[in-house]
Order: sequence, then C-alpha cells, then structure tokens
Amino acid sequence: MILSPKTQVKKNFSDGRAINFYAGPGAIPLPVLERVHAELFNFNGTGMSVMELSHRSDEIQFIIDDSAERIKKLMGLDDQFEIIFLQGGGSLQFLMVPMNFSQPGDPIDYIDTGYWTGKAIRSAQSLGRDLKIIASSSDYNHTSVPNLNQIHTRPGAKFLHLCSNNTVVGTQFHSFPEIPIPVIADMSSDFMSKQIDVSNLSVIYAHAQKNVGLAGTTIVLIRKEMLTKICEGLPEFFDYRTHIKSKSNYHTPPCFSIYITWQILRWIEEDIGGLENLEKINQKKASLLYDFIDSTSLFHCPVEPSSRSQMNVVFTIPNESLEKQFIYETSQAGIIGVAGHRTRGGCRVSLYNGVTLEAVERLIFFMNKFAKQHSTSVTQVII
Amino acid sequence: MILSPKTQVKKNFSDGRAINFYAGPGAIPLPVLERVHAELFNFNGTGMSVMELSHRSDEIQFIIDDSAERIKKLMGLDDQFEIIFLQGGGSLQFLMVPMNFSQPGDPIDYIDTGYWTGKAIRSAQSLGRDLKIIASSSDYNHTSVPNLNQIHTRPGAKFLHLCSNNTVVGTQFHSFPEIPIPVIADMSSDFMSKQIDVSNLSVIYAHAQKNVGLAGTTIVLIRKEMLTKICEGLPEFFDYRTHIKSKSNYHTPPCFSIYITWQILRWIEEDIGGLENLEKINQKKASLLYDFIDSTSLFHCPVEPSSRSQMNVVFTIPNESLEKQFIYETSQAGIIGVAGHRTRGGCRVSLYNGVTLEAVERLIFFMNKFAKQHSTSVTQVII
Repeated sequence: MILSPKTQVKKNFSDGRAINFYAGPGAIPLPVLERVHAELFNFNGTGMSVMELSHRSDEIQFIIDDSAERIKKLMGLDDQFEIIFLQGGGSLQFLMVPMNFSQPGDPIDYIDTGYWTGKAIRSAQSLGRDLKIIASSSDYNHTSVPNLNQIHTRPGAKFLHLCSNNTVVGTQFHSFPEIPIPVIADMSSDFMSKQIDVSNLSVIYAHAQKNVGLAGTTIVLIRKEMLTKICEGLPEFFDYRTHIKSKSNYHTPPCFSIYITWQILRWIEEDIGGLENLEKINQKKASLLYDFIDSTSLFHCPVEPSSRSQMNVVFTIPNESLEKQFIYETSQAGIIGVAGHRTRGGCRVSLYNGVTLEAVERLIFFMNKFAKQHSTSVTQVII
Repeated sequence: MILSPKTQVKKNFSDGRAINFYAGPGAIPLPVLERVHAELFNFNGTGMSVMELSHRSDEIQFIIDDSAERIKKLMGLDDQFEIIFLQGGGSLQFLMVPMNFSQPGDPIDYIDTGYWTGKAIRSAQSLGRDLKIIASSSDYNHTSVPNLNQIHTRPGAKFLHLCSNNTVVGTQFHSFPEIPIPVIADMSSDFMSKQIDVSNLSVIYAHAQKNVGLAGTTIVLIRKEMLTKICEGLPEFFDYRTHIKSKSNYHTPPCFSIYITWQILRWIEEDIGGLENLEKINQKKASLLYDFIDSTSLFHCPVEPSSRSQMNVVFTIPNESLEKQFIYETSQAGIIGVAGHRTRGGCRVSLYNGVTLEAVERLIFFMNKFAKQHSTSVTQVII
C-alpha cells in the first residue's frame, strides 16, 4: 500500500477540519460550504440571506427549477421524468410509494437487503398491502445482494421495490432488473454518486443527506407514464401529482435545504465536470480502501466482492477490544464516524461525494500504522 | 406620526441588507445569522459544519433536546407537554392531527378563519371524518375572527381545531376557548412571538419559518394526557408517539433547520430576555404600524381592530394603480415583501421576530412620504 507523499506530509489537514466519514448526514464539499458562507447574508444581490427568502420569491422558485434541470442534465434524462423535492425523508416515501401506486390488498413485490428495506417493507405492510418479499439476502446475513437475474415478480404485482445501496451492511446493486413490472428504487445513499442507467427504473427516490444535500429534502423522480397509475382519492399532500403540478411549491418547501442541493449540483457540474468524473473519483476512493483492507490480516470486509458498496465500506477487526481501540484512536486523530451502524457493530466508512480522495488516503495511512502496531495481537486471536 | 431622528438619518440600513417583510420564510434576527456564519465550518470544536454532523451525533441530539427544553422554559410549560420536531410543515399536520385523534366517521369540529383553515378542513375531510365548521368568519370576508364566547362544539367531537393567526387576512385570536373538548391550535405564524396561556390548549403545532426558524421544521407540542387518545394502527411515521419515543430521531430529522430554531430560541432567551420582552417589541412594531395606517387617508386596514394580527398587517390603498405603484416603489427602496397574498391582493407587512423595530420605522417613514406625495390622487378617488 503506497500513499502519495503529498498526503503523508500534509499538516493541518483541511485547515483543522475533521475527516468526516459519517454515514449521513456527512461531509459536504468544502467549495460548497465556502460559497454558502460567502453569500450567507446576501443571496444574489437580494440583500437577504437565502434563509430569509419567501418560498414564492423568484429566487427560490429558480433554485427549485434549476435544481431539477441540473439533475436531468447530469443524469442525461431528457423529459421522461418529473422531478420533485419533498420533505419527510425516505421514511415518508416508504409510505407514499405504496399509497400512490397500489390500493389496500394489491400485490406489491419487494427485495429485502437488510435494515432499510425492512423499514420500507413494514411501512407498506402497515397500509394493508399484499406484500411479497421475492428475494432476500437474509440467509447470508445480508453480506451480498440477491442475483437480479434470478428474481421472479408476480404477474399482477403493481411494482417491485428495492434499495440500491445498503448503508448498514455495505452492499450495493450495480445494475437494475429488466422485468415486466415497474421498478421503484430507493437510491437514498447512492443517488448522484455515479452515472446510472435509468432505462429499467420507473421511480427513483433519495433523501438528500448522503450525496446531495441536507437532511430535510427528498428528491423524487417519476417516469411520466407512471402518473396515470396513481390511485385516485389520496389526500392531496400524499399524491405525487400535487407536487409536480405546483413545481414542488404546494406547501412551503424546505428552501434552504434545496439551496444546498442546488449548490452541490452546481459543484458536480462545474467543479467536478459531471457524473462521469465524479464516479471515477468515488470508484477510486472505494477501491483504494477495499484493496487496502483485503491486503491486511487485521481488517476484514465481510461483504462478497461483487456486492460491495462504493459508498459504505463495512469492515471488522476480529478482536472486539482492538476494534473499540481502533474506533477510539481514529476519533482522537480527527477521523470521525468510523463506528458501524448501531444494529450491526464493527466499523463503517462512508465515502459520499463530500469525502475527498485525500481523506481516504489519510484514513488508510492511519489504518496501516494501526495494523503494523497491532499485528501480533490479531495473529494471537486468529490462531 | 413622528419617527425617531435616528431612524430617519440612518443611511445604509443594516449594511446594505434589504428590509424584509416577507410573510414567511422571512427575516431572521441578524445576530442569529452572524452566529451561524461564524461557526459554519466548525460547530462547537467538532471540526465540522453543523450541516455535516450525523443525526446520531451527541451534538445534534443535544441541539434537539435543548431546543425542546428551551421552548418549555420560554413558555413556562413544566412537564405537561411533549415537544417534537417533525418535517412536512403545517400541511402534514393538517392530516396527522385528524389521523392521530380521530377515526374515519368520527365527529371533529373546526373554526374557519380563511385560507389556511380551509386547507386544514379539506385535508381532514379527505380522510373521511365527520367534520363540522362550528364557526366561520366567511360571512364578513374573514376581516375579523369569530367570537369564541359564542361557539358551540358538539358533545361527541374529538377535538376543536383552530388557527391562531391568519397570515393571509391579517387576523388573530388573542385568547383560546375554554370548552369541554380538546383544543388543537395551528400556531404556525405566531408561535414564539408572545407569551400564551396554554391552559386551554391540548395540542399546538407550528412550522418554524415564521418566527422560529427555517421552512422544513415543524414543532408539535402535545399535552401528555392526549397520548392515550391516539388511535391505534397508524403507520409508525404518522403516530406522534413514534417521534416522542425516539426524541425526534425516528428518522433523520432536518438537523440544520432545527439548529436554526435552536439559535433563534437562544436569541429569544439570551439576547431579548424571554417571551415577555419579545412580546413587547412585537406589540410595539404592530401598534406603530396600525396607528400610522389609521392616521392616514391613503392607507386602509380592513381588519376589525380587536381581531387584528400582531404578525401580519394587511392594508389597502383604495386606488389599484396607486397600490401597484406603492408596492413597486417599496421594492425600489429595498423594502421587500409588501404585496398581499396572491389570493387576496392589497398589501401585507409581516412583523415576525426577525423584523426589527427600526425596519418598521423605516417602512412608516417611507409610507408617510408616499402618502404626502399622493394625497390628491386618493382624494380624487374617494370623492
């Protein structure tokens, strides 16, 4: 494992800022924070903070509309999708998806890949749908994703729901299934981290706080042909068409959160050069870390290689007290958010858009030092 | 009308910042913006922006818990209320209130005071409740609020819903009814603007973007005895108890928005000296403006004096083209947000916590000058 000397000698990394691997909300690109800081008192010559602008002002509607346009452009979508900005996170989408596209008693199919799909499944079940889990990774403790070539949806099922990236267990689908029913993807933790082929997707939703903003904004992309399938009689607030019709301004949108999303979209386009470049950076961050983990005897990644997430790298140290010491020592070194999900334990490093390559190199440098210091204690445990 | 000379000679008001009378989102206290600006890159020595902190971090849970404690302390609540922070604005509460406290077919009583209660009423009706409007201001075009001493709720009604302050029409209830069923108040536009007697209130909800934060956070206060009345079988997300149990962290809360609420609560307590002082300032702002309007022949406030809102001062100029000119000239003078609600026309000036007394004096100075310039044209119209 060779780190660039530049990284090793870098002192006062990021001007005293922590190295943030939180699983989300997490790191925001520094250039974005700098722009927010620079215009905090006066947005675009209005003499007001963007926080103080009416949701009916031209500026806020521009930010909303331009954000939708930038998503379309970055993803290469043309006009086949409607894009709206909602509140309530993925959790409200766990309910709105079945409310919009199925009636009580209707068959709906789900793929189970762990914690988050479990929440989505229980939410849909609480609405009284005929929900079937058509594939699950539970038999192998969610350490890989089901093979999408082997799934069988029910002919009458209204849709198939899946979660593209699973933050808790560190798995990710790297493609989507071609099946005869609509596919609805919770992409909360990998939306806008890479190019995606949307041809097999009918609805995409993602809360913003991983790769593209703050907690409080949820982005929903709906293929126009799905609008005819929305069930009538829903309260307006829950009906996707309400928010499409009002350009995400049916009720006061989370303006400041959407503004941060807009700034991040600008950063992806103008600073990074688009999703293709961003994907390369994100792939490099992940492969550097996985390659390092696989090269050591101290750290172990339990996830099957072809299912590994580019966003959340989950690993363990096969010695509980040493693992605790590792997590403690990272935090002492200003490396934050390395503990695994509370339901799972172990370690987890999240590599969202705001995390730099330098941050990953810095982490690996630290892990390498730690591994050398503790190779004996682990050998003892393994023996 | 005499303005302090200090105001009249003040040049470059608020360092080039506009005078913001938006109806919300609107003005945020400048000291709050300054604190946010100062710690934007590094919150409390974490080396991270508050935007970058995990919702499971000690810092975010502290901000949430401390915000609830500060609301209790400022309002003098002791432990009779649970306080939670949700997403979805007043619009989601229009649904969650009837969902939590009534079943389909149950009688629920509403007071109609215009635009916002209309939305609340239609939302509850869309859930299939037996909703009765027991009092309405529609007969007099919502220019005053119904007399609460003359209302009669139905004996079996699950609750009475009202809106304490009506931003569109500029009316406000200055007390709450003592009745045998629970009173639920939408206080979105006057919560935390004054002291209130909560003894007759069972549930209070308020989105934050008027007086106490950003769009994207909704604060709900629920009297503990109401928790036993919540209907079983609701999806977890909609059940208030879910959010109480998880200390507003059932799903990722809108952390940054809650942080702004926390900063404003600190400002109310530490800079202003509490709700009693804040109420005096807000009363002074409103009475200065109403007194000025009533003293002129050009401007006319259609709201019955005892129903006038301290938050939203609605007025007209009885000459449509002159009214347009007035609104245009205010914006040219850096006075923003003076146009009335799009459904109502006329003028509206919102006097939320973030609006300073100096801003109101500046507006009155401008209005006075305008009135002097145009007294002839109005006289012509009136004659």
